[in-house]
Amino acid sequence: MSIIVLGTVALDGVTTPSGRRNELLGGSAVHFSMAARLFTRVGLVAVIGRDFPPQHTSFLKRKGLDLASLSVGEGETFRWRGEYEGDLNTALTLRTDLGVLAEFKPALSSGQARTRNVFLANVDPDIQGYLLDKMRSPQLVALDSMNYWIDCKKGKLLKLLKRVDIYVANDQEARELSGENNLFKAARALRGYGARMVLIKKGENGVFFQGDDFVLSLPAYPVEKVVDPTGAGDTFAGGFMGYLSRARRVSRPVLKKALAYGTVAASFNIEGFGVERSSALRLPDLENRLGKFKSCFSL
Amino acid sequence: MSIIVLGTVALDGVTTPSGRRNELLGGSAVHFSMAARLFTRVGLVAVIGRDFPPQHTSFLKRKGLDLASLSVGEGETFRWRGEYEGDLNTALTLRTDLGVLAEFKPALSSGQARTRNVFLANVDPDIQGYLLDKMRSPQLVALDSMNYWIDCKKGKLLKLLKRVDIYVANDQEARELSGENNLFKAARALRGYGARMVLIKKGENGVFFQGDDFVLSLPAYPVEKVVDPTGAGDTFAGGFMGYLSRARRVSRPVLKKALAYGTVAASFNIEGFGVERSSALRLPDLENRLGKFKSCFSL
Repeated sequence: MSIIVLGTVALDGVTTPSGRRNELLGGSAVHFSMAARLFTRVGLVAVIGRDFPPQHTSFLKRKGLDLASLSVGEGETFRWRGEYEGDLNTALTLRTDLGVLAEFKPALSSGQARTRNVFLANVDPDIQGYLLDKMRSPQLVALDSMNYWIDCKKGKLLKLLKRVDIYVANDQEARELSGENNLFKAARALRGYGARMVLIKKGENGVFFQGDDFVLSLPAYPVEKVVDPTGAGDTFAGGFMGYLSRARRVSRPVLKKALAYGTVAASFNIEGFGVERSSALRLPDLENRLGKFKSCFSL
Repeated sequence: MSIIVLGTVALDGVTTPSGRRNELLGGSAVHFSMAARLFTRVGLVAVIGRDFPPQHTSFLKRKGLDLASLSVGEGETFRWRGEYEGDLNTALTLRTDLGVLAEFKPALSSGQARTRNVFLANVDPDIQGYLLDKMRSPQLVALDSMNYWIDCKKGKLLKLLKRVDIYVANDQEARELSGENNLFKAARALRGYGARMVLIKKGENGVFFQGDDFVLSLPAYPVEKVVDPTGAGDTFAGGFMGYLSRARRVSRPVLKKALAYGTVAASFNIEGFGVERSSALRLPDLENRLGKFKSCFSL
């Protein structure tokens, strides 16, 4: 089964202790796709500007992505510039140029509207809702957001959560939206808002998941040399949702395995700048690292 | 096989969002023992003052601890007063009265000097070294320390690490002593100082372990209602070392299981004030929760 991802295609400028890169291909939809494509056909719903380098478009095609709903807007491609220091856990955003993203209204081909699986990466909740309205019969919908929308469009976001199967957040966001410090309580509160399941990403500290009547908790895959953490969360979501899209039933063991795939996908992503590492991945690479990951903790 | 724990027996004053308690039985050796006793005979090497309530001594005896090397010093029992706020991850120490701890020289019965397993909880590295010198043929030695000793007795601590099988630290301490932010690199550096293995406790984020040629990483057991985190790390160490003391060989799967026992033991500890919960534990309680813990992540 294929999957639709709504998100950004960006040109990133990144500085980390490992170096500095400019005009890197990035954005939530791109990072997500690099992992999800290993499991399923990915339809990318995003916008680029007239300045978007054609070699990047060819690259995305070569990676097998369905670009039917990648629109070209009047203006410049979305750009983000950030910096990481010390522990590499938090990005300091230096600059954001929305460009074509400011006026983005996603278009969707009629074939794609029938896709069963949807990932709404972090964009304006209005755009997320707009796309969700266009989907004919979504079966599995996951949504990511960020502090900015929690602050300024909380009502819209909460309304949207009622239509979502899995709310994906990082620990800070989960705490902020729920007002609970304990992640167990935070996840429960977020489920109370309507999301059936809640996935809380904790960066180097792994992931916490709460379903109907169970919780799952996985450590991160230990990476010795973190080069660039940009996109780790979206790569995680790509591995996770990619695996789920292929599964027949979203059961507890399937979710656990999906979290493990997300974890190893993200661990590759952070070993290189941008999608350097994740775009070169093949499924056996994931399987191989999954085996090593298991041996770190599986009892 | 029995185990010796060198550490503190304290009277604690604790304030957490769940309430306030005074003159609670606490201290590293006590918290450690409450978990370790479930697996093996524990010899407690510590000092109390003349003011130590006799009912606490009876209580420790009833819990099956060997008190032959619990000495009574001239002066008052060691007291600690602390407070936890918000996320309950960090204790704010309000007051420390060393009392008899200031002049503590551990004595050891000749029978106990032949014990194979030793846990040196966080006390002055000089005292830790002094006790280690008295042990005839220690087979498995683990040592915990704290920032205070890293700052003011670093040389002594580093010397001691060469004689230790497992160095137990929290993430802050591991980073401080190694000068490395990445825990993988930190653990490697700490092994470079001489400890054969390194165990890094990350509180609610679980535990990271590095051995000769492998790493282990476990999440924490998700606890919804944290009442009092005091002693969680020592309880963890008690479950971990208790299980290891009983194992024939310290292999990778045995270490993994020991970490899991430490994790569930600590999860009980934080559900009550002081040793309220951990002192009431029986092995089947641990086994039972271990089953639930496994189902949270084991693939």
